[in-house]
Amino acid sequence: MKLTKDTKILIVGLGLIGGSYAMALTKQGYKVRAITTSQKSIDYAVEHNLIESGTITPDPQLISDSDLIIFALYPHTFLEWMEQNGQNISKGTLITDVTGVKLPIIYKIESLLPEGIEFIAAHPMAGREVYGVENATDEIFKDANYIVTPTENNSPQAIEVCEQLGRVLGFASVSKLSPEEHDDMIGFLSQLTHCIAIALMTCNDSPHLENYTGDSFRDLTRIAKINYAMWSELFILNKKNLIKHMEKFELEFTKLKQALQNDDIATMRKIMRKSTERRSRFDKYPCDN
Amino acid sequence: MKLTKDTKILIVGLGLIGGSYAMALTKQGYKVRAITTSQKSIDYAVEHNLIESGTITPDPQLISDSDLIIFALYPHTFLEWMEQNGQNISKGTLITDVTGVKLPIIYKIESLLPEGIEFIAAHPMAGREVYGVENATDEIFKDANYIVTPTENNSPQAIEVCEQLGRVLGFASVSKLSPEEHDDMIGFLSQLTHCIAIALMTCNDSPHLENYTGDSFRDLTRIAKINYAMWSELFILNKKNLIKHMEKFELEFTKLKQALQNDDIATMRKIMRKSTERRSRFDKYPCDN
Repeated sequence: MKLTKDTKILIVGLGLIGGSYAMALTKQGYKVRAITTSQKSIDYAVEHNLIESGTITPDPQLISDSDLIIFALYPHTFLEWMEQNGQNISKGTLITDVTGVKLPIIYKIESLLPEGIEFIAAHPMAGREVYGVENATDEIFKDANYIVTPTENNSPQAIEVCEQLGRVLGFASVSKLSPEEHDDMIGFLSQLTHCIAIALMTCNDSPHLENYTGDSFRDLTRIAKINYAMWSELFILNKKNLIKHMEKFELEFTKLKQALQNDDIATMRKIMRKSTERRSRFDKYPCDN
Repeated sequence: MKLTKDTKILIVGLGLIGGSYAMALTKQGYKVRAITTSQKSIDYAVEHNLIESGTITPDPQLISDSDLIIFALYPHTFLEWMEQNGQNISKGTLITDVTGVKLPIIYKIESLLPEGIEFIAAHPMAGREVYGVENATDEIFKDANYIVTPTENNSPQAIEVCEQLGRVLGFASVSKLSPEEHDDMIGFLSQLTHCIAIALMTCNDSPHLENYTGDSFRDLTRIAKINYAMWSELFILNKKNLIKHMEKFELEFTKLKQALQNDDIATMRKIMRKSTERRSRFDKYPCDN
């Protein structure tokens, strides 16, 4: 298949991400339909021109009449849905997803697919600290990365369509990683940072700290407001990578603590110089200075 | 003394904070002079209307002709300066500072003061990841907290002038804490967050991570760009508090790691729910959602 304005796109799961995909695609003139569990979400999405139409039942006719199906579900729901409804997907249909971990999902989904249907996985690294289609906005893609994670089973055509989807959605950058590289990277850049924010937010019960806090503390804990159902699932699915990164972080943190404990100012400054140099490479805007 | 437009204000140390104080005060119509170690900084500050005049020598006449002296120096430089030049301060002069830790500084400074001179300590919780008077801007005070940390030796008048100074500088909030409370709070809200950012930034040497990073990682590591000379000094001065908070954080981080290790999803979610609830209390703007 190719992605054109005539492509029949079906989004399964109209939450924050599914809804934001719908908004971006509809704005660009694509035809979007949806399946989700809540009638309220369908009503909202139709009313706000995010989708043409939608249903809360996994209508076999709607499923089979789709060229591109985008799954924006929790990992376990994605697997369940595919077990129950995968047989209704038509030959030639391309399916993709938004799941935050890749290796534990991709091969399971591939094993559930009927003949002639290709799954090309992708991870939109975008989000907000609120949920639901009511908070959907394509603004979240503007500064974000979209990562396609092909396997040896993917065709160049499918990879190309998936990359095109990332560009149509308006992502600042579209790139490719193997599922293994992706899960390692996400374990560090996203999951470890959430663990840190959570631990920082919960390790001090003193009242009224919020009266004195500056922007640095707010920045570090913004993501401590977390969709715990989803993130706990993602953490467990990526357990090996995440534990590895947690341990590397602990080691470095302890090194700094011991230098402080020993009044070893030379080591402290060495670590700080390294962090200053490394952080410079991550600057996005001049104003990050 | 009272803070009026005729008050002769002397700023000692024209770096980022001293320069930003100078800018805010001069804009409000106060008369500001300065002593700092670099002629370039003096020239810049005069040229950009931050100060009326300044000198790189600790001119006894200028010092004695000041009603309010603001010290914007590193802690050890502040102590050295006072040892060498304290005797030139006139009776009735009020002195204040911007030092990031309080208990280890205040009583030492008080012990160095000649009779009839009062020191009222304050901490402007503002900053940037760049240094020097060339980067000075009163914008940094707008959303920030100004904390006065009086001791039993301070007069109500001095406390009132210091609070007035915080308001004149344009801080969003002016409050009072004991030096002990301040150092405990700052050990958690500011110093621990810097340690975390540093360790996160230095614990992974993989190349090209910056190509995939999202805003959450950038937010957590913004402060990993650090003035290591100043911060290592502040960390050591507040060692007891900082180590205590580092250990509390490690404990909580390990709790989360062990829950993950044991696939204990109930405990993970309990910790995440707590972090979500606590973080809500720190929201500054509706858009923090």
